[in-house]
Amino acid sequence: MTTLLNYAADTWTEATGDLTDVRSAITGEVVARLGSKGIDFKAMLDHARNVGGPALRAMTFHARARMIKALATAIMARKDELYALSWATGATQGDSWIDIEGGAGTLFTTASKGRRELPDDVILIDGAHEPIGKRGTFIGQHVYTSLHGAAIHINAFNFPVWGMLEKLGPTLLAGVPAIIKPAGSTGYVAEAAFRIMIEAGVLPAGAIQLLLEPTADMFDHLGCQDVVSFTGSAATAIKLQSHPVIQRESVRFVAERDSLNASILGPDATPDSPEFDLFVKEVAREMTVKAGQKCTAIRRAFVPAKLLNAVQAALIVRLSKVVVGNPQVEGVSMGALVSQQQRDDVREKARLVSRQAALVFGDIDHVALTGAKAADGAFMSPLLFRTDDPWGSDLVHDVEAFGPVSTLMPYRDLDDAIALANRGKGSLALSVFTYDPQVARDFVLGAAAFHGRIVFIDRDSAKESTGHGSPLPMLIHGGPGRAGGGEEMGGVRGVKHYMQRSALQGNPRLLSGVVSQWLPGSPQSEGDVHPFRQRFGELAIGYTLNTASRTVTLEDIEHFAEFTGDTFYAHMDEEAAAANPFFPGRVAHGYLLLSFAAGLFVDPAPGPVLANYGLEGLRFVRPVSPGEAIKVSLTVKSKAQRNDEYGEVRWAVAITDAADELCATYDLLTMNAM
Amino acid sequence: MTTLLNYAADTWTEATGDLTDVRSAITGEVVARLGSKGIDFKAMLDHARNVGGPALRAMTFHARARMIKALATAIMARKDELYALSWATGATQGDSWIDIEGGAGTLFTTASKGRRELPDDVILIDGAHEPIGKRGTFIGQHVYTSLHGAAIHINAFNFPVWGMLEKLGPTLLAGVPAIIKPAGSTGYVAEAAFRIMIEAGVLPAGAIQLLLEPTADMFDHLGCQDVVSFTGSAATAIKLQSHPVIQRESVRFVAERDSLNASILGPDATPDSPEFDLFVKEVAREMTVKAGQKCTAIRRAFVPAKLLNAVQAALIVRLSKVVVGNPQVEGVSMGALVSQQQRDDVREKARLVSRQAALVFGDIDHVALTGAKAADGAFMSPLLFRTDDPWGSDLVHDVEAFGPVSTLMPYRDLDDAIALANRGKGSLALSVFTYDPQVARDFVLGAAAFHGRIVFIDRDSAKESTGHGSPLPMLIHGGPGRAGGGEEMGGVRGVKHYMQRSALQGNPRLLSGVVSQWLPGSPQSEGDVHPFRQRFGELAIGYTLNTASRTVTLEDIEHFAEFTGDTFYAHMDEEAAAANPFFPGRVAHGYLLLSFAAGLFVDPAPGPVLANYGLEGLRFVRPVSPGEAIKVSLTVKSKAQRNDEYGEVRWAVAITDAADELCATYDLLTMNAM
Repeated sequence: MTTLLNYAADTWTEATGDLTDVRSAITGEVVARLGSKGIDFKAMLDHARNVGGPALRAMTFHARARMIKALATAIMARKDELYALSWATGATQGDSWIDIEGGAGTLFTTASKGRRELPDDVILIDGAHEPIGKRGTFIGQHVYTSLHGAAIHINAFNFPVWGMLEKLGPTLLAGVPAIIKPAGSTGYVAEAAFRIMIEAGVLPAGAIQLLLEPTADMFDHLGCQDVVSFTGSAATAIKLQSHPVIQRESVRFVAERDSLNASILGPDATPDSPEFDLFVKEVAREMTVKAGQKCTAIRRAFVPAKLLNAVQAALIVRLSKVVVGNPQVEGVSMGALVSQQQRDDVREKARLVSRQAALVFGDIDHVALTGAKAADGAFMSPLLFRTDDPWGSDLVHDVEAFGPVSTLMPYRDLDDAIALANRGKGSLALSVFTYDPQVARDFVLGAAAFHGRIVFIDRDSAKESTGHGSPLPMLIHGGPGRAGGGEEMGGVRGVKHYMQRSALQGNPRLLSGVVSQWLPGSPQSEGDVHPFRQRFGELAIGYTLNTASRTVTLEDIEHFAEFTGDTFYAHMDEEAAAANPFFPGRVAHGYLLLSFAAGLFVDPAPGPVLANYGLEGLRFVRPVSPGEAIKVSLTVKSKAQRNDEYGEVRWAVAITDAADELCATYDLLTMNAM
Repeated sequence: MTTLLNYAADTWTEATGDLTDVRSAITGEVVARLGSKGIDFKAMLDHARNVGGPALRAMTFHARARMIKALATAIMARKDELYALSWATGATQGDSWIDIEGGAGTLFTTASKGRRELPDDVILIDGAHEPIGKRGTFIGQHVYTSLHGAAIHINAFNFPVWGMLEKLGPTLLAGVPAIIKPAGSTGYVAEAAFRIMIEAGVLPAGAIQLLLEPTADMFDHLGCQDVVSFTGSAATAIKLQSHPVIQRESVRFVAERDSLNASILGPDATPDSPEFDLFVKEVAREMTVKAGQKCTAIRRAFVPAKLLNAVQAALIVRLSKVVVGNPQVEGVSMGALVSQQQRDDVREKARLVSRQAALVFGDIDHVALTGAKAADGAFMSPLLFRTDDPWGSDLVHDVEAFGPVSTLMPYRDLDDAIALANRGKGSLALSVFTYDPQVARDFVLGAAAFHGRIVFIDRDSAKESTGHGSPLPMLIHGGPGRAGGGEEMGGVRGVKHYMQRSALQGNPRLLSGVVSQWLPGSPQSEGDVHPFRQRFGELAIGYTLNTASRTVTLEDIEHFAEFTGDTFYAHMDEEAAAANPFFPGRVAHGYLLLSFAAGLFVDPAPGPVLANYGLEGLRFVRPVSPGEAIKVSLTVKSKAQRNDEYGEVRWAVAITDAADELCATYDLLTMNAM
């Protein structure tokens, strides 16, 4: 039995008052005690804002990503400590794997996305610049910058590690410090994972703090730069979100709450189709993984009316094989609910559902146990309900029994299936088992607006499918309506929840200075040194090479056509080319222009430019006729260090004619030595 | 005097009960009567959901954009009718121009963005697909789909046309019907503009409805597919947002409410610098345009302490030239506030401010008038306050007098200026008058998180600058904290507020069918007909040409180098190339590969392919050594019709070597005949 400590202002701090006992879900023994009496929440908030925030904002996205990767590595290195604790929450080895290694996995993915998709800077450019004035002296540019407040993470009990880390990764990547309030019933696992992160020694002071129980004044001090990210019940979410400070200060409130997720066996399925078996397997799995305590679990299973009995029979076969009991005993496939209180709540909800649906598998009050005693732990049987009248049974669509409980129902046709899925009034996850792309598209058009994630499972994807209930760090997690209207993760999307988007307006010179990127209309500096002779660190944003010009002759075009085999008529046949709506007559190949442009700007000897690794946004604006001369301007647009040896340089390239009219424009990407 | 009608379920409908009189802001005469008693709001909502929504969702983004352009054209064609009404709201000709032509302008821009930046489809793809399984049989793809509910637009009084249209454009483009509740005091102008749109005959039934006064049950019927977009006071916003249905159903609530916007003369300014004059001019302009009744108007003007007196003197000179009165009389430069009630409110707020700041220009209770009588209209003088102790004067940062009222204050240094700007606790617009890019960057890092828009004005941009207070349809409008935390417009960004983002998962074949775009891993169909011989309508998504192969010889490389002039050492010097970290030795030019690839896939004779107009996302993945053979696969990735004659085809191109390893990948863009 451990007394857990809060971590406030970089100090492990004991609560002063009474502590709450936390009991094992398996044995009923007290495994931890926790509390937050005497903790000064206002001081924690100030510490996050004044110490943690400035330190994180001083780091670039890439530096933050490296830090997040180090946290994930630290969790993995000490994962055995977490597995050892996780068992008492009722989790099987598989459940713990989702929580612990799945949690570290979200950090790894977030770190990797941060390195690959965000700049090595503190400002994130959003979209292309917006021309405003016709002469180009006044433009717009959207950017994201870090919020200056703190993130308050109020987490659920079911995945104490994953639930903490899936929020923490995007928050830290955004440069925002976090105050984490784990759920009490599994707080000892969260505290252990938190401690591992602190002991990793990679976080700046004030970056993360731990509050074991809520303080009464928590929301009184929040402001417009803070974000509350809440996971839990709708009732609690509504209570918190209605706090006058949240409303007055427009505090961002990201909620992930109840969800009556649906799974649908498509109208194209038959008892012999692979999708039939995949559906049965997935419904049974979702009912029993983590004893059904997943916000994404399948609560409502819909099948074509004619398959209802067959699916029920197959499901019962599967559920009959579930062994409930102590997860440390060989052969046990489903553990306990997190607490007896939680189990009692699920039983009560199941009784509600039983008013409108028949119980076709399981027993609300009894379950055969392996290696455990019913009186000690929080065990219960998987419960499968069935109703043949889904539109007459409101309770199955409105009551979320947060345990191994699901209801099987028939639908008439595709439209009925879509309407029933949407009857959940907003959910986190919908799964559809179909092999027909048209069914998939109809579901997206009819149901996507009601569901944060739709997973299609079929024979081709089954082996690699992550299944109905797994939120993934690169995909958004959250949903409209009952699910709270929030959105988490989704790679860089989740990072933006902790940043503010602002529209900047001004002269391109000023805005280029702000975003560390050359913007059209901004000055182009020239110098004596060819840019290919300057190392990564020496290249200044806006530095420009204006090349000599070269005439593109008819012989060049004909030679290029013959050499490459590209004898497209627009280059070869004057009459046919002139009949084309885009060309005045024969014109140079676009790739000939690109190739000549390189010939004009390349400095051939070995030097800092290591390779041309790509090109973006090429547009051929004006065709070049035989006899016309082209020239090139090559401007350093932006830079991103990749490692200690080299970095990426993006060059804005403009190919113009003798009258300075633009013929082609693109971004050239090179790798340059440090 | 007109009795205004509601427009409910495609029918002009008279209210049954008492009507509210609306008086001219200039003469005090009753100009209109309005009410909504007896209107069945639930029926309006049902009509929007069941008739308007399905009709709009059946149109593609491009079809909706054409419809929006037609609405803008209709407004412009009948703008004189609106100018004739606008005068009675207290607006000058210039004020009305902002409202009427500015409003039509937002529709034109929204329509144009819709055509250029959205697909000719009903699903909007968000970001690249996300690989999940290693074998590529299970991937993720984010999409936006239209919400299935209604948008409830609750608009402010100050710009009855613009305020209606800036919300309506993105809503309709998203495929969502709107119920518009204009402000009563200028409802007659909004109603006239609404009527013009109905009479244009381009909207499907149920697309827009008009409710002149709120009904008591308005929020009782909302659900998770509806959006409330509110512009008005914080007090009203908080009251509405706290409605239990909004919370329970997670109804999206976009609020644009109070804002104590700041304008700052940069620390680099001197009395002689152009930015000094620009600042003075802008503060005076923002105080008087629309009699200061702009949510973006400058309420707080900050200058370097040493320039305080000079700025005050210059401002007073400018304000002294303002002529207040009847806008129809020649020479009048500022009209009336919208109503005497509104004027009384501004006077009361000004008295509050006067407790902590000295009035240095104007008179709270009196103003000299031209062509009008004080007793009839809602006139007041511009009021300039000053305090030398901005940190000791809370009221100037917290009290929004929604009229021609501003307070001038000093700041010590850059950090002080940033902190004072942020003391507004979240605003819509901040302007900074500086010529120094470093000052601009410091402001963005220090203040952007508190402001939805930051405009930098300097000598280079002044002529084309749209100024401090003008929201633009391509830039976001909204701000954190006190400003409500909402976001509108911003081009396509604003459209997404009326759509739901969902993560789709599944086999690429299924997801390609959903998004009408070939995704990697999806089947590639081959046929006898070269794709260059198929017209736009005939090309099937996924149709693929696999070309013959061609060996790239050393002679090819040397010849290409000589021909183009690109003699970069990686192609020419075996020893130097091998020393490069990316190359095994001499390699082919990237542009040589592109050119040979075109030679392999191009079908030269005239046909449906009209032009190669560009290329996206080119990456050279693996260098090609002399003697290696390359081949190309060219797959139809997506299509977008541009007009009746031709459309854009995007081709996924992969250049592979003899072992099928990827050497280069890119999207090729062509224009193809119908």
